[in-house]
Amino acid sequence: MHLDLKCSLTGESYPVDQLQNLSAQGKPLLAEYDLDAIKETMTPQAVRARNIRSMWKFWELMPVDSPEEAVSLGEGCTPLLQANRVGPFEPFENLFVKDESFNPTGSFKARGMSAAVTRAKALGVKAIALPSAGNAAGAATYYAARAGLECHLFVPEDTPPANIVESKLGGANIYLVNGLISDCGRLCREACDQFGWFDLSTLKEPFRVEGKKTMGYELAFDLADHFGTETLQLPDVIFYPTGGGTGLIGIWKAFDEVEALGWIGSARPKMVAVQADGCSPIVKAYLEGADSAPLFPNAATCASGLRVPVAVGDFLMLDAIRKSSGTAISVSDQKLMQGTEEICRWQGISACPEGGAVWKAAEQLMSDGWLSPEETIVLFNTGTGLKYNHLFKSDDIPRIDHEGENWMKILEQQS
Amino acid sequence: MHLDLKCSLTGESYPVDQLQNLSAQGKPLLAEYDLDAIKETMTPQAVRARNIRSMWKFWELMPVDSPEEAVSLGEGCTPLLQANRVGPFEPFENLFVKDESFNPTGSFKARGMSAAVTRAKALGVKAIALPSAGNAAGAATYYAARAGLECHLFVPEDTPPANIVESKLGGANIYLVNGLISDCGRLCREACDQFGWFDLSTLKEPFRVEGKKTMGYELAFDLADHFGTETLQLPDVIFYPTGGGTGLIGIWKAFDEVEALGWIGSARPKMVAVQADGCSPIVKAYLEGADSAPLFPNAATCASGLRVPVAVGDFLMLDAIRKSSGTAISVSDQKLMQGTEEICRWQGISACPEGGAVWKAAEQLMSDGWLSPEETIVLFNTGTGLKYNHLFKSDDIPRIDHEGENWMKILEQQS
Repeated sequence: MHLDLKCSLTGESYPVDQLQNLSAQGKPLLAEYDLDAIKETMTPQAVRARNIRSMWKFWELMPVDSPEEAVSLGEGCTPLLQANRVGPFEPFENLFVKDESFNPTGSFKARGMSAAVTRAKALGVKAIALPSAGNAAGAATYYAARAGLECHLFVPEDTPPANIVESKLGGANIYLVNGLISDCGRLCREACDQFGWFDLSTLKEPFRVEGKKTMGYELAFDLADHFGTETLQLPDVIFYPTGGGTGLIGIWKAFDEVEALGWIGSARPKMVAVQADGCSPIVKAYLEGADSAPLFPNAATCASGLRVPVAVGDFLMLDAIRKSSGTAISVSDQKLMQGTEEICRWQGISACPEGGAVWKAAEQLMSDGWLSPEETIVLFNTGTGLKYNHLFKSDDIPRIDHEGENWMKILEQQS
Repeated sequence: MHLDLKCSLTGESYPVDQLQNLSAQGKPLLAEYDLDAIKETMTPQAVRARNIRSMWKFWELMPVDSPEEAVSLGEGCTPLLQANRVGPFEPFENLFVKDESFNPTGSFKARGMSAAVTRAKALGVKAIALPSAGNAAGAATYYAARAGLECHLFVPEDTPPANIVESKLGGANIYLVNGLISDCGRLCREACDQFGWFDLSTLKEPFRVEGKKTMGYELAFDLADHFGTETLQLPDVIFYPTGGGTGLIGIWKAFDEVEALGWIGSARPKMVAVQADGCSPIVKAYLEGADSAPLFPNAATCASGLRVPVAVGDFLMLDAIRKSSGTAISVSDQKLMQGTEEICRWQGISACPEGGAVWKAAEQLMSDGWLSPEETIVLFNTGTGLKYNHLFKSDDIPRIDHEGENWMKILEQQS
């Protein structure tokens, strides 16, 4: 394996050929590749020419020795869609949505699980376990099924029903917990100790972040394709909905890696972390100038992906936000639901509430003057809206009797 | 526009620069391209080199003069996943799933709507209308939203809730009808006459089939990529779940087009149309040796995409099945639900019931000796399983109290 695992706090090395969770300091381990060794062969041109329809086209920067080793379901290669300049989107001249709903089980979590399950399987794991507030549950279930592993999920009892049905159908063992994701995390840890399962909690094993970082690589290709340039391009600003924060941390890590490969220069997008008012530990820590974010009390938001009151990667997120001259901002549940509907109706993009949140954050920062109309801005829609049907009403749909005589009147009243 | 519209029964031409529905004979119009004119420039190599992440990479074979005209949300470019040889899938040496859940709104219907809405918009349409038993509703809603068109949907009242919520969120006008899709179709037609909306019913306008045919083009590239050949390849057998049948008809049409371009030879896959026992008009007509399929009485199946008792493209489907030496087969609802679960649990692919149906049909035909183990077989999973949550129970998930003492016992009982 052409990579080292290093503690993200101390830089101390850990063996990559053994199962790893957190470092001795309780911090995430991050993968470090021998970039000089692959620099000659892994060029943007070479990657472009590969007929691999998944994030594993970047396999030299992933925990495998060849793409065939990957436990893959076609994750990644999601579209970057330019927003039409209509309605509330009118002021934005170069607004894009990276639509992560085009993934197995409909969310960006697939990327992380593909990488983590690939490495766990290679190291002989038979059963994985993790806490999840939503999308990670489905992703873990289906990658475990693909790899022939047992899957154990600890989910808060208010997890969206769609995630539970999906995971049950995929054969996972699910446990509904009367608490928050942080409570689920504790039970998961104890159960892993007891039963010998491998703990796949985000950032508590080193490879989910490796899968998610591929969003950063793809973005550089997507924008080059859009603008028709040979040279890879990054946007001016990235809005990322931040629960556990692994996506934001991964994208930030990806940029450093491809700079070392000579694919991009030293310029970086401003990274904007977006949370919900009811659960905004990173925003609070950012505004207070703190380096870490303690548990946010009484966390509550309908955007289940943002319902993460404490994150082990807190210091890495805060570091990326500050180094990039970005910011952190929260929006109310009412606003983020409104934003979800606006993306659907004006852009035709099926958004999840987390996607709605980043859009309203961008709208806010544009009206504050923090953004300029001509800046290239990317919003991450981290998953499909289909898992959030329980949040939307549809009991006021008109009914018409096809054998009746007055049905045309009902249509007239609607128009 | 470099194409003609011809009646699929008589071959008579219709003007392409006007809105068209059925021919004077009440039959579908199909697009015919000047293939000689594009043969030189549109090579597989040229298509491969295009940085267009959607089915519009095949734009010369679509109703546009340039890819920029397309109303696109990133439809197509779906993965072809090889099935693991595990459990009930063990006998299949070369089984693949073309996973159409990787589409906007999670189904293959996106391809058809992207093409149809593109052309409708170009011809000045302001409002579209259609009947739908499920996935077409969401796709029409989001493409109409993308194009800034009004959208009117006539849906049977037993349409899966997910489709209704999705369409409402996307701003469509939905009407719940106490009847079947055929009743919805009649109301839609009358409403279009009354209000001047454009009828986008499948095969009743010429371009939904043009979008869906791109599944055929992609398959030829996908298999070449998989087997590492420069030459495009087709499978030996294709299993397609057949409601309105536009997908099957489109794929069959695509093969003729790319043969004329010199991309493939004259060999064709056997086309297998799969329906549900409770709604199997095409299977019945095929077995009876008929050229058309009358309305199937009392149509009923939980696979809403297969709940189409009469199809205007019946004769085209039957023709493709017979010319390809294929067959038509139906499976029970119990079997197709079992098949859905098997694909999820053994392959890690989130299947819809229609995907479950094609898998059980393939299993049946293998055990009958109609298929050989070494044949290259492609199953179409036409959409995400997420829209069918209402069919699956999840009320037996164990609950654990994170402050209690006995929670570990519950886990032990599960294992």
